[in-house]
Amino acid sequence: MLERLHVGGPASRSELTAATGLNRSTVADLIAELGELELVEERPAVVTSRPGRPSPVVHPRPDGAVALAMELVVDSIAVATVGLGGHVYNRVRVARPRDRFSPEETVQDVVKLAGPLLDSLPAGYRLCGVGAAVAGITRRADGFVHLAPNLGWRDVPLAALLAEELDIGTAVAVANEADLGALAEYRRGAPPGTEHLLYISGEVGIGSGVIVDGEPLLGAAGYAGEAGHTLINPAGRACRCGAVGCWETEAGELALLRRARVRGDASGVDTVAERADAGDPTAVRAIAEVGRWLGIGIGNLVNLFNPELVVLGGLYERLFDRFASSVREGMRTRALAAPGELVTIVPSALGIDAALLGAAELVLSGVIADPADGRQRPAARAGGMT
Amino acid sequence: MLERLHVGGPASRSELTAATGLNRSTVADLIAELGELELVEERPAVVTSRPGRPSPVVHPRPDGAVALAMELVVDSIAVATVGLGGHVYNRVRVARPRDRFSPEETVQDVVKLAGPLLDSLPAGYRLCGVGAAVAGITRRADGFVHLAPNLGWRDVPLAALLAEELDIGTAVAVANEADLGALAEYRRGAPPGTEHLLYISGEVGIGSGVIVDGEPLLGAAGYAGEAGHTLINPAGRACRCGAVGCWETEAGELALLRRARVRGDASGVDTVAERADAGDPTAVRAIAEVGRWLGIGIGNLVNLFNPELVVLGGLYERLFDRFASSVREGMRTRALAAPGELVTIVPSALGIDAALLGAAELVLSGVIADPADGRQRPAARAGGMT
Repeated sequence: MLERLHVGGPASRSELTAATGLNRSTVADLIAELGELELVEERPAVVTSRPGRPSPVVHPRPDGAVALAMELVVDSIAVATVGLGGHVYNRVRVARPRDRFSPEETVQDVVKLAGPLLDSLPAGYRLCGVGAAVAGITRRADGFVHLAPNLGWRDVPLAALLAEELDIGTAVAVANEADLGALAEYRRGAPPGTEHLLYISGEVGIGSGVIVDGEPLLGAAGYAGEAGHTLINPAGRACRCGAVGCWETEAGELALLRRARVRGDASGVDTVAERADAGDPTAVRAIAEVGRWLGIGIGNLVNLFNPELVVLGGLYERLFDRFASSVREGMRTRALAAPGELVTIVPSALGIDAALLGAAELVLSGVIADPADGRQRPAARAGGMT
Repeated sequence: MLERLHVGGPASRSELTAATGLNRSTVADLIAELGELELVEERPAVVTSRPGRPSPVVHPRPDGAVALAMELVVDSIAVATVGLGGHVYNRVRVARPRDRFSPEETVQDVVKLAGPLLDSLPAGYRLCGVGAAVAGITRRADGFVHLAPNLGWRDVPLAALLAEELDIGTAVAVANEADLGALAEYRRGAPPGTEHLLYISGEVGIGSGVIVDGEPLLGAAGYAGEAGHTLINPAGRACRCGAVGCWETEAGELALLRRARVRGDASGVDTVAERADAGDPTAVRAIAEVGRWLGIGIGNLVNLFNPELVVLGGLYERLFDRFASSVREGMRTRALAAPGELVTIVPSALGIDAALLGAAELVLSGVIADPADGRQRPAARAGGMT
């Protein structure tokens, strides 16, 4: 029931009864219990013209469970405070030059951003956890980053570093940014009823996350969903991961800049887009080529996952209108007819903040799974947050 | 609890209490209920040297829920009768030449095989459904086969054809053979605790099925898991699916025979294996090359699914000892270190009958999910089974 309120927003008792299939008295008991936990509150219904006594409306209480969400990627770091129901109290994103920052420096920077956001939360809020999205291959159990090739990191105990630097006594969960982007697009972006979704994000490489039957695909240890490092061209280029011909070597940002003959920095994609809009044939061709390779890889994933929806994020969202037809054409060359005809390809609904919001969703999922556990009054966050 | 008994075999009440986390009286109630449904029976414990009164042992009753399982593939058709707990009453497999049989002929042949098997079941058995494995892309909802390129079938309402020809009034479920092979290997082959498994079967093409967190990966309509038709070599050969460079064009049976310069019929793989064993360098090289491409594709899937176990079936099981090192080497060139180090590659535990047994498991899963429903006394199968 809490999930219904968190994802679907406020609902009357009758709506909750219908949505959960529970009987009215069980629903009333649950509302009372969640009310005591300060996770929901009932408010009078807005008066409508419908006959009968209006049922009061149950609202999720954002201040009853606040997630501190973070994102650590190549071009920026970001922090947000997000309450139950998806209410974003505040968010901040800081661009970073593409020097290789050490994990320690990055953690210090992101923790500095977090302080003011926590301080500006309403009095009496309950912090329920910290979630961090990172552009790397991450073990879920302990938030250990094995490899973040585009950040230049290897074997970083990121959750432990964040917990130490934050010093707020609450659990820190770390996950791959595209996995979290997929979670956020599923919960906050996709049309209701979508249960099989791919999120493909154009970054320096390609991030990808998969929702299978409403659940994030994690695999045995949380490494699943690394589509950017599947082979697409054995005659292709070396990838930063050590292999040759990975999907991201043909469809990632570097591939776009290489094809467009634009120098590789954070503004390179905008340069390519501007040139294409001005009619530069090299730029137009580069975008179409990247779109085609993107579509080819999507076709592979369509055959593997049979999703209803493919959501394109990162630079793919920015280029969407310019290359959507190339992407669809590439997809059609690969996808089998049956799953290919079922799938829709759309730009991200959440844009640059998809993974950041996914980090909040990761934390809030824990509250939904066990509402009575793992929460903490703000009093506990003494010190360390200057 | 029924799942525990079906997969794990007979257990005492205390073991069931421990396994399910339910209390003793609930377990006793459930046993009584399942006993009335003739799905389980209690038998006296074998006397042991352990102190205390021996707890009676609860056995699944195979005759309480029998699945009629079928397999329709390129080189053979097969039928089995399998009871709850995985008891195989009987199975029969008939090789077929590689002419293109029509769906109608194939269905008639398989139904003819089924009659004697049903007739030889113990008196009073309950047939709970028909499951069929087919080498094609199949919609789960209605058992409609969109495309079975290696059978030469397109748009075949297979479940409807089987139901009509069998005329036994029970539901007919149809699914992709490799998806069912994965299910059987998960339930009956893999070590306990394995929850993420890939089943890759070498046939004329490549069949593949995926278990994610203990559940078959189906996708939105049941088409998921078509790894054989993911791109592995854009400079490669045309595939029967219409695309170019699919995995199966490099690692399927035809690729093996082509590389070994052996004529393509059902005995071709044995010829290659014999020549390799006799030291023929062309055959040795062909097996190693196919193994390497197989491993490369497995590496892609390891990055996507992060499985604990990869089970090789079909011709890959027969070649396993001859090419395991090439497979592992190919896998290592592609898999990221973190998921690559976690995965074990093994030959099929169930061999040629994996998909057939999976078809039975598909039907029995329905009984486990809803023990009181969808079952039927044999009296109902009047006529049509001569």
